[in-house]
Amino acid sequence: MVTIGIDVGGTNLVAGVVDIDADYRILAKAKCKTASCPTAESMVDALVRLSREAVAQAGLQESDVHAVGVGIPGAVDRIRGIVIEAVNAPFSNTPFTEMFRQRWDVPVYLENDANCAVLGEGVAGGAKGCSSAVAVTLGTGVGGGYLCDGMLELYSRNGMEVGHIVIEVDGEPCPCGRRGCWEQYSSATALKRMTREEMRRSPDSLMWKLCGSPEQVKGKTPFEAARQGDPAGKRVTERYLKYLSIGLANLVNVFQPELLCIGGGVSNERDEDFLHPLQKMVDETSLHKRLGNQTKLVKAALGGDAGIIGAAILYQEFA
Amino acid sequence: MVTIGIDVGGTNLVAGVVDIDADYRILAKAKCKTASCPTAESMVDALVRLSREAVAQAGLQESDVHAVGVGIPGAVDRIRGIVIEAVNAPFSNTPFTEMFRQRWDVPVYLENDANCAVLGEGVAGGAKGCSSAVAVTLGTGVGGGYLCDGMLELYSRNGMEVGHIVIEVDGEPCPCGRRGCWEQYSSATALKRMTREEMRRSPDSLMWKLCGSPEQVKGKTPFEAARQGDPAGKRVTERYLKYLSIGLANLVNVFQPELLCIGGGVSNERDEDFLHPLQKMVDETSLHKRLGNQTKLVKAALGGDAGIIGAAILYQEFA
Repeated sequence: MVTIGIDVGGTNLVAGVVDIDADYRILAKAKCKTASCPTAESMVDALVRLSREAVAQAGLQESDVHAVGVGIPGAVDRIRGIVIEAVNAPFSNTPFTEMFRQRWDVPVYLENDANCAVLGEGVAGGAKGCSSAVAVTLGTGVGGGYLCDGMLELYSRNGMEVGHIVIEVDGEPCPCGRRGCWEQYSSATALKRMTREEMRRSPDSLMWKLCGSPEQVKGKTPFEAARQGDPAGKRVTERYLKYLSIGLANLVNVFQPELLCIGGGVSNERDEDFLHPLQKMVDETSLHKRLGNQTKLVKAALGGDAGIIGAAILYQEFA
Repeated sequence: MVTIGIDVGGTNLVAGVVDIDADYRILAKAKCKTASCPTAESMVDALVRLSREAVAQAGLQESDVHAVGVGIPGAVDRIRGIVIEAVNAPFSNTPFTEMFRQRWDVPVYLENDANCAVLGEGVAGGAKGCSSAVAVTLGTGVGGGYLCDGMLELYSRNGMEVGHIVIEVDGEPCPCGRRGCWEQYSSATALKRMTREEMRRSPDSLMWKLCGSPEQVKGKTPFEAARQGDPAGKRVTERYLKYLSIGLANLVNVFQPELLCIGGGVSNERDEDFLHPLQKMVDETSLHKRLGNQTKLVKAALGGDAGIIGAAILYQEFA
């Protein structure tokens, strides 16, 4: 059986054709820039177009597609097919499913994007087959979800908003209205902001050479600089990992999961620079380890594909 | 059917005889000071003695007791009946069930104390009949649990350690080893510490008259002073409620529950001084409200009895 999984990301819109019976293999993908779709209409147009492109690329017909699942960066009403509110996407009480089906009449399922990524990792990725896992994605924001026996525990129409746990009272302002939310310290966006701040303080830093200007900072910039011995780069990565580990240990204390699955571009940094120091810090600070248990940190195995695969199997959650 | 529920609290040990069929009514209670039992042996002795006292007070025989449930302030191995680690109680890998049954041979069930309180509020208290609830207890520490359709969602052998969510990076040191844990700002212990600190800074404060000396501070001291117009008392209660609301909004963002049930002595403060300002702050800061939903804050209805009733029905969770 073939379905389409769509990931509405902060940067890209991606539609993937997924072969459910071939271990959730993605047969083809099509993408475009999120910023090129300023309205709900134009974004739905783009998502339908990308879906058709991916189907054609896979050498299939529209009629081969059993269902379409869509991961939305925000809150959805799954039953009514409405996007209640979204971040980085022009949806607000938008009858998404209806709009999609006016363009292509196929069963359409909605879910929060972080939930999709968690579900994908749970069925086909890093959290496959484990009894309990928390999956977090470090992207434009920080999203997360909790898996129990491979099933997504859905608390609400919204994802589990782990990025909006305040870890620093009166800290960095967050678009959600609070101050000091975890995602202001641990998202890819936050990493870049912290890197730019450090560059301004350190005109001699290697980071200037690596990226040219603060506007061109990437998440990997400080990690690359730190590896080459740059003290400013090291300050950024150490601060970033400290805050990230605090938020991860918070989740370990609440959920005490077997696995903590970390996704997003930054998780592709070398294990010795990212996963290993994080594991050490989480072990040292969480209560779970003290009780003789350990939450194992793993990289999300599917990368950006987790959200696509999770969206592609949403039809199963509704079956 | 009659069972016994035991609450191993930071201050008191309490055993209650509960009539399961009469809407979980507590027929009799017996208690003693926790501090009077410095060893595991002496504490188990005391708990058996208190259980027998309560049974006698209720005019019943030992043979009338169907089961005993015990809420432990720490981590338990339910299956093996072992207390893995406890806070404020002299247990560490203690074969509790076996020790109890050597003194009184009756089925004994163990559970984390915060989970017991949540379970009690879920079956017979403030969270009865609601689809999802988070219950927190503001006591010596801050404990909590999550109820879904009235059932306790048990993540682990330990309770959901919500008190050990860091809300202030590099903040107050916590016995758990971290800094800035929520319970260092929102437990009854923390409220008293904050009150003492403010008294030292404010020698003219009414709080000195209300309690005599910093050693005799109670949780209600700053609230009483604030009601009488004392600026120092007001500073304490405002700071306490601010930090408390931040931790509560964190839980609302993660679990998005229908109810948030707050227990512990401080929750008995007048609604206009406690529950109402908290509700306002949580509404203003959590994402849930922005999505058109509201998490309703309620007082735990059973007070200190929640843990006893929850412990008394543990036999059902294992049935």
